[in-house]
Amino acid sequence: MSFQVVAECNGARAGVLSTPHGDVETPVFMPVGTRATVRGLMPEQLDALGAQILLANAYHLFLRPGDELIRDLGGLHGFTSWNKPFLTDSGGFQIFSMDDLVKVTDDGVRFRSPIDGVYHFVRPEDAIKIQNNLGADIIMAFDECVRLPATDEKVAGAVDRTIAWARRSQEAHARDDQLLFGIVQGGADRAQRDRCITPLLELDFPGYAVGGLSVGEDRAVMLDTLAHTTAQLPRDKPRYFMGIGKPRDLLDSVTRGIDMFDCVIGTRNGRNATLFTSQGMLHLRNQKYVRDESPLDPECDCPTCQRYTKAYLRHLYKSEEMLGAILGSLHNTHYLVGLVRRMREAILDGTFPGSVHCAP
Amino acid sequence: MSFQVVAECNGARAGVLSTPHGDVETPVFMPVGTRATVRGLMPEQLDALGAQILLANAYHLFLRPGDELIRDLGGLHGFTSWNKPFLTDSGGFQIFSMDDLVKVTDDGVRFRSPIDGVYHFVRPEDAIKIQNNLGADIIMAFDECVRLPATDEKVAGAVDRTIAWARRSQEAHARDDQLLFGIVQGGADRAQRDRCITPLLELDFPGYAVGGLSVGEDRAVMLDTLAHTTAQLPRDKPRYFMGIGKPRDLLDSVTRGIDMFDCVIGTRNGRNATLFTSQGMLHLRNQKYVRDESPLDPECDCPTCQRYTKAYLRHLYKSEEMLGAILGSLHNTHYLVGLVRRMREAILDGTFPGSVHCAP
Repeated sequence: MSFQVVAECNGARAGVLSTPHGDVETPVFMPVGTRATVRGLMPEQLDALGAQILLANAYHLFLRPGDELIRDLGGLHGFTSWNKPFLTDSGGFQIFSMDDLVKVTDDGVRFRSPIDGVYHFVRPEDAIKIQNNLGADIIMAFDECVRLPATDEKVAGAVDRTIAWARRSQEAHARDDQLLFGIVQGGADRAQRDRCITPLLELDFPGYAVGGLSVGEDRAVMLDTLAHTTAQLPRDKPRYFMGIGKPRDLLDSVTRGIDMFDCVIGTRNGRNATLFTSQGMLHLRNQKYVRDESPLDPECDCPTCQRYTKAYLRHLYKSEEMLGAILGSLHNTHYLVGLVRRMREAILDGTFPGSVHCAP
Repeated sequence: MSFQVVAECNGARAGVLSTPHGDVETPVFMPVGTRATVRGLMPEQLDALGAQILLANAYHLFLRPGDELIRDLGGLHGFTSWNKPFLTDSGGFQIFSMDDLVKVTDDGVRFRSPIDGVYHFVRPEDAIKIQNNLGADIIMAFDECVRLPATDEKVAGAVDRTIAWARRSQEAHARDDQLLFGIVQGGADRAQRDRCITPLLELDFPGYAVGGLSVGEDRAVMLDTLAHTTAQLPRDKPRYFMGIGKPRDLLDSVTRGIDMFDCVIGTRNGRNATLFTSQGMLHLRNQKYVRDESPLDPECDCPTCQRYTKAYLRHLYKSEEMLGAILGSLHNTHYLVGLVRRMREAILDGTFPGSVHCAP
C-alpha cells in the first residue's frame, strides 16, 4: 500500500493510491454505498461508469446486518461482490448527526439504534474493530464532528476527543492490510485546526481526512479553512475531504490540494429529479420538460443520456417510478466521477483548472 | 402482421406472431410495464433476459402523461426507447378494479382519476383512440371484467356489454399497423362464455384474449373454463390469457392452448423479497438466509444469480434498499420469461410438458 503524487498543477495534485484491491487514481470521487449498496445502482453499472472505490458506512452496517456477519461472509468485498477498493467511514458523523439521542463522554459515544431502540456504546476501539471486521481497504479514525455554528468550548472539546480517539484508534487497529486515516477537526477556527493537526501528524497516519466542514458554515469560510488545513498536511499522503460533492466544491477543493471525495448528493439528487449537467443543474419535475426530447446533457456519454429523453425521465419521476431514480442516479454518479477524473487529466496535462468546465 | 402455429404438442402450440416491431415467438410471457416502464428494470436488462414484448396500460398512461403526449413523442416505442413490440391493455380491467368509484352504462364507464380527482367518461371508442395514440403493436378491445363470485345477472350484463363494445372497438380502430384483439368474458359460466365467443368470432379479430379469470374463482374452475374457451377459439389466431403469471398456471395454461401471458407477479414479488426458483418459491426475509452464500437458484443464469448471494440480497431487502427490488425483479422476470421460452422449446422438441421442470 502506497501513495504517490505523480503531477502537480496550480495547487492541485494527481496521484496513485495503491490498495490490496487495486490502484486508485486521484483525485477521485467515491460514490457512497451507506448500507453496502450505492442506492439504486448495480456494481456492474458503477464499474462501467468508472467508479474506482466505494464508501460504506461502519455505523449503518454495525446496526444491520452486523459487522461480524459481513466479516464471516468475506468482508465487504465478498459480501457485496464489489472487488475494487472500499473505504469505510467510522460512523462518528452519523452518530453525532442524531443529536439528542447521543451522549458523548471522553470514553466514547452512547446512542440508541433507530432500527430497534437498543442502546449502544461505541468507543474508538469499537469503531476500529467494526471496521477491521468490515475489511475495507481504507478505514477512518473515530472522531467527533461538530455542526456549525458552535461555541468555542464545544469545538475545543471535540478537538480534544478527536486527538485522543485518533491515538486510541491507531492503537486498536489490528490489520496491516487496511490503511487507517486520521481526521482533522476544529470547526472553522484556524487555531483549533492547528491544535488538531500537530498531534495527528506525530501519529503519522498514511492518509488524512478533513472533517467537520460543510456542516453549516459559509462557503468562503469552508474553502479558507480547507486551504489552511491542507497547507499543513504532508505532501506525500492522500488527503480526503469528507462529505463533499457539489461540482463547484469539488473543483475548488482539488485546487486546494484535495485528493479524495465522497458524497451522497449524486444518488440523493438522482432520486429527487435533480440532475447535474455540463450546463448546470436541471430540476426535471419542471413542466417545461414535458415534451423535451433531448437528453439530460448533450455532452454526456452515460447510459441514461445515450438512450432516454427528458420527457420520458420526467414522466418516470412524476409517476414515482423506480426507473427514474435509477437512471437519474446513474447519470449523476457518472457525472461526478467523470468530473473529478477530468480534473485529474487536466492536472496531468498541466491545464488545471482552466480546462475543466464546471457549471456553477 | 401474421400468426403462424409452427408446432403442436399435447394441446400446446408454438407459434410466431409477426408485428411491425419484430416477431414474437409464442408461447411468450410479457413483462408488465404499466406506466411505460417495467418497475425497476432498464429496457437494456429486459432485452438481455430475452423479453420479446412488453405490456403497457392504456388507462394509466391516459391519466399520466396522456396518450396524446406519447403519440407526439413517437408513441410508446419512441417515448420509452423500447423498440421491440408493445401490447396495450384497454384499461377496462383497471377501471373496474376501482369498484365504488365507477359507474357503468351501456355507453361506457364513468370513473374518477385517483391522481387528481377529475371525472372521466371512457367509451369503447375512447379506449381505442387512446390505444391508437399510444401506438402499441397489439391493442385490446374495451371489455367489462367481473370479479368472481358474481350473480348470473352481473356476468350476463358484462357479456352483453363486452360483445357490444367489441364491435364498437373494432369500428373505432383506425390504424392498420396495430392488431386489435377481442376479449372473451363470461365468468366461470360455460354458457356465458359460449354466448360471448360466438359473436366475437364473427367479428374475426386477429387474436383473442381470455379475460375475467383468476379473479376470485377456484383454480380448478379457472382451468376448466379456460380449456372450454380455448377449445372454441380458432387454431390460427393467437390466444392471450390475461393477467396470469404463477409458474404452475403458466404451464397448465400452455397445456390448454394459450400463447401469450402477462402478469405483474414477477416485479411485484421481486420487490417483496419473494423469488421464483427451480426449487420453488423463496421468501428471502426469512432468518434462515442470513448467512446463506448460495445464489437464489443454482440453475439460473440471470445477472442476479451470477453475482449475488442470498445473504446479500436478504440484507438489501431488510434494509429496504432499491437494489434488492432491482435484483429480485430482474431474477423473477428472467425466470418467468425463461420458463415460458423453455415450454416453447419443449413443444418444438415434442417433449412438452414432461420435459419442463416447474416447481409447484
